[in-house]
Amino acid sequence: MRPGGSPLQLPTQAVRLICLLAAVASSVLIAHADDDISAADVWRQPDPENLLLLELPMGTVIIELAPGFAPEHVANIRTMVREEYFNGLPIVRSQDNYVAQWGDPAESDDDLRSIGSAAESLQPEFERDADGVDLVAIKSRDAYADVVGFVDGFPVGSNGETLWMAHCYGVVGVARSTAPDSGNGSSLYVTIGHAPRHLDRNLSMVGRVISGIENLSSLPRGTGPLGFYESPEETTPILRARVGSDIPQSERAQIDIMRTDSDDFSDYVEDRTHRREAFFVNPTGRIEICNLTPPVKLTL
Amino acid sequence: MRPGGSPLQLPTQAVRLICLLAAVASSVLIAHADDDISAADVWRQPDPENLLLLELPMGTVIIELAPGFAPEHVANIRTMVREEYFNGLPIVRSQDNYVAQWGDPAESDDDLRSIGSAAESLQPEFERDADGVDLVAIKSRDAYADVVGFVDGFPVGSNGETLWMAHCYGVVGVARSTAPDSGNGSSLYVTIGHAPRHLDRNLSMVGRVISGIENLSSLPRGTGPLGFYESPEETTPILRARVGSDIPQSERAQIDIMRTDSDDFSDYVEDRTHRREAFFVNPTGRIEICNLTPPVKLTL
Repeated sequence: MRPGGSPLQLPTQAVRLICLLAAVASSVLIAHADDDISAADVWRQPDPENLLLLELPMGTVIIELAPGFAPEHVANIRTMVREEYFNGLPIVRSQDNYVAQWGDPAESDDDLRSIGSAAESLQPEFERDADGVDLVAIKSRDAYADVVGFVDGFPVGSNGETLWMAHCYGVVGVARSTAPDSGNGSSLYVTIGHAPRHLDRNLSMVGRVISGIENLSSLPRGTGPLGFYESPEETTPILRARVGSDIPQSERAQIDIMRTDSDDFSDYVEDRTHRREAFFVNPTGRIEICNLTPPVKLTL
Repeated sequence: MRPGGSPLQLPTQAVRLICLLAAVASSVLIAHADDDISAADVWRQPDPENLLLLELPMGTVIIELAPGFAPEHVANIRTMVREEYFNGLPIVRSQDNYVAQWGDPAESDDDLRSIGSAAESLQPEFERDADGVDLVAIKSRDAYADVVGFVDGFPVGSNGETLWMAHCYGVVGVARSTAPDSGNGSSLYVTIGHAPRHLDRNLSMVGRVISGIENLSSLPRGTGPLGFYESPEETTPILRARVGSDIPQSERAQIDIMRTDSDDFSDYVEDRTHRREAFFVNPTGRIEICNLTPPVKLTL
């Protein structure tokens, strides 16, 4: 202890901050442990058919696909995955505070890898009819949408008539050219920075990373325009892409995602909004949609 | 060209997206080039006394310090930098979608590096009086603050009476323990993910990274709790930290930052709000404070 002063260097403060934040997470994870609410009401196990696993040299990225938002694109992606289209293709782009993107790096159309039996062109699936969809709204003033909340675990914006996936950290979209129908899922991107919500309703969104996003977000940034890598040596290969249901049962991880329509998730939102831990001397009492991420438990 | 289909793979779409976004930046950079407005009204050169340079093995991070927001903490940091406190200390933490942090990794108080003549304890500088401050407000609905905008290039929130730096991507704050006065600037963090705005008004904010943030944001994530590195071998050292005014004139980069109180910046905000490029079939017509970053030109 320094004379005349309290220690305030790391790791003391670090550990305390850790404890505070861990306490929040922990209280979420054990919330209602004493109640009669069954785990099935709180945690859901995603359909393996809706899991896309990208095996990278550093680890596996697991994406929960969202057929409810972009059924045609998700089906097309599954087709390409099953025909091994993505195997060996690289992450072609890492733009700081924006996106990481993968796909065919061929410079000429003649050199493009075949997408096999997948559709070359699809109609855009930028938004969907809000009618009949169970949207769990969040009380958040939002810069971009009149209503925000969650649908089946995915962050959304809505104008009441339609809804769309919000470009929060970790969501996965279909890269395209200028023409709205120029994306087919053969090139995908993930948000790795502050939510670029101006992209909402302008791209077909196909899912959200539920595990391993650090393998994409901590890649060295590409030094070419918009973060594209300038040489093949700089890129990271996708060793293999698989749909979850094609993985042998014995090799599958147990995945539990907190249901966004559960009371526990409401409690989680409440906790994150009010920040009652001692660290927060000026709690905001507010929360933004992209600062809420449904908790995931992964058991290998 | 594939028969019967337009090419939509990378890099075609990539290049087009590049062009679109580059066009925005370009139009900003040359805006008013034909006007009588002098460059001095548009671009400012930060005071070298307010520049903090962190030399890392991968490159240099340049931070513009904000004495207007946290004068005591900024002064304390300058003292420590000049007494070579930071030289050789590591980046101790990289937590995905949150912060990178540097400081003394000593596990025991006895092992802490001396902070020399710097103050061990300072009063918090979490917010400042809004009276008399030239806040350039942005028309943005904000989840956390009643008013948002810029003060001297820094993103802020305000309640009309006080204002504070908003935790946007790239802002730099003083790490602390639970006690509000437990930070002194010897450990600093930078936001590397979606803006954790719940931290607003809870930490003393000392600046914003204006160049080289990719050297911090793309670090491998720490695998310990809250992204702390678990062994010294995993950390990245700060080779040297310097205040800009201590660097010989001949070695200084030319830095120009767009004035946030300039017409050009208003045009930039307008461009980013309305996204009139052909790519955007559903422009939002809205903008969020943390999706606006004052353009910086760096000439080495």
